[in-house]
Amino acid sequence: MSQRHPSSKIIETFDEQLSSLSSEELQTFIKHVRRRLDDVDEKEKPVKEENNIFSRVFLLSALLILQSGSSFILQSFSDLISRHILITMYLTMLVGAGGNAGNQAAVLVIRRLATSKSFSVRSLILRETFSAVIIGALVTSVGFVRVWIEERGAILPSLTIGIALFCIVTSSILLGTLLPIILQRIIHVDPAHAGPIIQVIMDILGVCITCAVGQTLLVNLSAHKHKEL
Amino acid sequence: MSQRHPSSKIIETFDEQLSSLSSEELQTFIKHVRRRLDDVDEKEKPVKEENNIFSRVFLLSALLILQSGSSFILQSFSDLISRHILITMYLTMLVGAGGNAGNQAAVLVIRRLATSKSFSVRSLILRETFSAVIIGALVTSVGFVRVWIEERGAILPSLTIGIALFCIVTSSILLGTLLPIILQRIIHVDPAHAGPIIQVIMDILGVCITCAVGQTLLVNLSAHKHKEL
Repeated sequence: MSQRHPSSKIIETFDEQLSSLSSEELQTFIKHVRRRLDDVDEKEKPVKEENNIFSRVFLLSALLILQSGSSFILQSFSDLISRHILITMYLTMLVGAGGNAGNQAAVLVIRRLATSKSFSVRSLILRETFSAVIIGALVTSVGFVRVWIEERGAILPSLTIGIALFCIVTSSILLGTLLPIILQRIIHVDPAHAGPIIQVIMDILGVCITCAVGQTLLVNLSAHKHKEL
Repeated sequence: MSQRHPSSKIIETFDEQLSSLSSEELQTFIKHVRRRLDDVDEKEKPVKEENNIFSRVFLLSALLILQSGSSFILQSFSDLISRHILITMYLTMLVGAGGNAGNQAAVLVIRRLATSKSFSVRSLILRETFSAVIIGALVTSVGFVRVWIEERGAILPSLTIGIALFCIVTSSILLGTLLPIILQRIIHVDPAHAGPIIQVIMDILGVCITCAVGQTLLVNLSAHKHKEL
């Protein structure tokens, strides 16, 4: 059954050496081995220059076209936007927060997928859902105070941006957790691609959430109040 | 002068083994060595869980506060924004394009810094300046056509977004090239931190550029034309 490869004797010697070394010697030896491996790598495959201008332009243009989808949503809320400059003022902050939160969660999960041989996806999702709500609430309170100060204590604008921020940050963390797992386990694609996908999805979703919350609180609720008076 | 370390004999043996192997055997041996090194790594330092909720909240809140700086700029252009919904419609697309272009350039430079022992910073900057203009022009033409179609052939809106897009993409690529080099060579900080810094700078700069171009083309130039008539 066992097939003796020509290099198996050398492997045995290497393993013996490794186990015979003291902790300090091991460090020196490993440092040396790593350096030699890097040398071999460099000889085996020359550094691939993936700096092709056209592939860069293609990716950037594709992302641009996808992200420009938000213009349709914003146009359909043109009434809200031209009457409430508040929406535009905090739009880049809200959309940016979604991208940051999603990316941060994705990076943590991607590293988890790369280093841990086995972990329970269910417990990870449960824990990250909990994290998403806590992080969402804490970041939202910071954002609320920030808007509240600039809007000189006006509650409705601060509440509008705050609620939108909470929805964006929590959904972004959940997406950032799920997407790398879906990419690796279900679609069998490198989970590192999650970054730009999250960025684009959260751009569109962030604009949707902001407009929906703005429409509900600034237009519908105000109209309702006016009717009651 | 020469100090013989206890592990130096083993290092010699290892080097001899390495040079004695054929290409195919080398692959098998290296694969084995890598696996053993990973085992040692795992034993030496247990996986550090950097999933601290509070450090995540701190970073996200800091980015939020920095990105909210764009609200001051947008408020000072409130007249332009409430009269030209075009600015808001394409703002997330423009700001997003800046972030993407800057990040892409930074990732390429960071990998360059990590793999190449020596390369001419001057020639890299020259080449990336050239790339920035070419990529900026090509992405801008895609963006121009995209806006031109949605605005049903109106030239001034398409030109406004196009010029803003060109300025944002080129400046973002230049920033993405320079920042990792500055971080590593001058401030001596891990260049991997360039990502979020670029995101925040390009958010603010993107809003500035868009408002400035919008003010010049949509307000000042139109007013000038009206006067002439």
